[in-house]
Amino acid sequence: MLYIIGLGLADERDISVKGLEIVKRAERVYLEAYTAVLLVDKDVLEAYYGRSIIIADRETVESRSDSILAGADKVDVAFLVVGDPFSATTHADLALRCRQNSPPIPTRTLPNASILTAVGATGLSLYSFGQTVSMVFYEENWRPDSWYPKVKENADLGLHTLILLDIKVKEPNLKALERGKYVFDPPRFMTAAQCAEQMLETEETRAASEEGKSTGVSGKERLAVGVARLGSEGEKIVAGTLEELAQQDLGKPLHSLVLCGWKMHEMEWEFVRDFAVDREKFDEIWKRDYAGKGVQ
Amino acid sequence: MLYIIGLGLADERDISVKGLEIVKRAERVYLEAYTAVLLVDKDVLEAYYGRSIIIADRETVESRSDSILAGADKVDVAFLVVGDPFSATTHADLALRCRQNSPPIPTRTLPNASILTAVGATGLSLYSFGQTVSMVFYEENWRPDSWYPKVKENADLGLHTLILLDIKVKEPNLKALERGKYVFDPPRFMTAAQCAEQMLETEETRAASEEGKSTGVSGKERLAVGVARLGSEGEKIVAGTLEELAQQDLGKPLHSLVLCGWKMHEMEWEFVRDFAVDREKFDEIWKRDYAGKGVQ
Repeated sequence: MLYIIGLGLADERDISVKGLEIVKRAERVYLEAYTAVLLVDKDVLEAYYGRSIIIADRETVESRSDSILAGADKVDVAFLVVGDPFSATTHADLALRCRQNSPPIPTRTLPNASILTAVGATGLSLYSFGQTVSMVFYEENWRPDSWYPKVKENADLGLHTLILLDIKVKEPNLKALERGKYVFDPPRFMTAAQCAEQMLETEETRAASEEGKSTGVSGKERLAVGVARLGSEGEKIVAGTLEELAQQDLGKPLHSLVLCGWKMHEMEWEFVRDFAVDREKFDEIWKRDYAGKGVQ
Repeated sequence: MLYIIGLGLADERDISVKGLEIVKRAERVYLEAYTAVLLVDKDVLEAYYGRSIIIADRETVESRSDSILAGADKVDVAFLVVGDPFSATTHADLALRCRQNSPPIPTRTLPNASILTAVGATGLSLYSFGQTVSMVFYEENWRPDSWYPKVKENADLGLHTLILLDIKVKEPNLKALERGKYVFDPPRFMTAAQCAEQMLETEETRAASEEGKSTGVSGKERLAVGVARLGSEGEKIVAGTLEELAQQDLGKPLHSLVLCGWKMHEMEWEFVRDFAVDREKFDEIWKRDYAGKGVQ
């Protein structure tokens, strides 16, 4: 049996009691370590779980999954995933490969906390979120804004958008690669401030280009909430305009950002405003652009 | 400190290791038992956690929360919630009351698995879901279809809709109440089949009434996925048309239903079709109405 086990968001003790029992008895234990990371290192997990853990990078999971699945039709293998098992499509893909294996490998999934629901800690109602989008690091000549039309779709319906932020772990250094050397760049995690900055930039670029490409959905005075290390003791939530959030340092990773929809209800506002950088300004903009618009 | 602790979806061992430690040492332990239920009874939790548990019904949480919060500025109180703490707005409300209490009561939330992400087990991508909607039991003279325009908004964008199904626990029997007696009805949990049935009915009613009120979004041949007891060993997933699902018995609660959006990608289809009641028909409809529409 292949057990795909969610670890939750913060540390070694966010695994479920059931998940821990399986980890302790499994033949081999893998940790997927490229779509998200915990706030603690692998050796902390190993010490707590009493097991040695094999790191599964993107290449192993996507191209060499045979090594993970070997013998799993007979013995138990645990595949640990930060957050919830189905937070990344790559895990559904792994489950599918088990099913299509000959002989088929039975799988079982143990769900756990995900950023998709933990974001409820902001006070924004999970029922008022539209589709989730991803934001990648803008590079010099590559500033992909495919997130923009999706945010716009949500915004048109008055819905919030959760924006998941890029992480780069174990990326080969391209300059070293040109010289024939295989060196890894240090890990990079996008901050909520960087995300806000990129959103403002795209809004400006669109405004400066063709007519109609800019819609104002990620303009300076749009309200948003930045979150960091949700679900951990050191979690941090900061609310404000995108312009304000672009200046906020939320500390260590992982960060995410929520862009608020105009249906933001009075009850949500009452909760969220406690996290505001500048409460007076937050209230003013909420009353001007959001308040009462959600009444149906 | 008030700890709002998610229990996950299935049984007593889905609590996190961290959550269990808090439950064991808390002064009092409450279980919120009206927005969702576990698949095991309170006494199973009590035996496993080694604690006696106070059931908190809707009235206690919403109108008499003082009893829950009493002394929580000095001692630890655990408030257990099935699924994830922020899956229901009532819990955000409780956290807000702690903050506004005098003196303020510190709170901490321990996220856990939620149906909102566990539904990824269907193979449908969590990034392709729009807003979540709720379906209540239709009564003789009350058939509220406020879910319909929201499903339509998602459908217009090609997005999936997760539909959470009504549960009725500890509801007073109205006929007995008329006679001055306070008797509770047995608990009721909406099945995926009942939900599909109600959706078909509303589509028909709208088609028979004014022009333009019916849009076909919950018509007979729309593809959907019914899920039951997700995250447990006995989880069941069945895919098919709404008409087919209205005839499917998924067994014991809790059930939910996903209405598929036309952006359903080939990879999602490949996963989901394995759960189809009638795979040939499922494939045919997918190819006719969904396939390739999601390519951007």
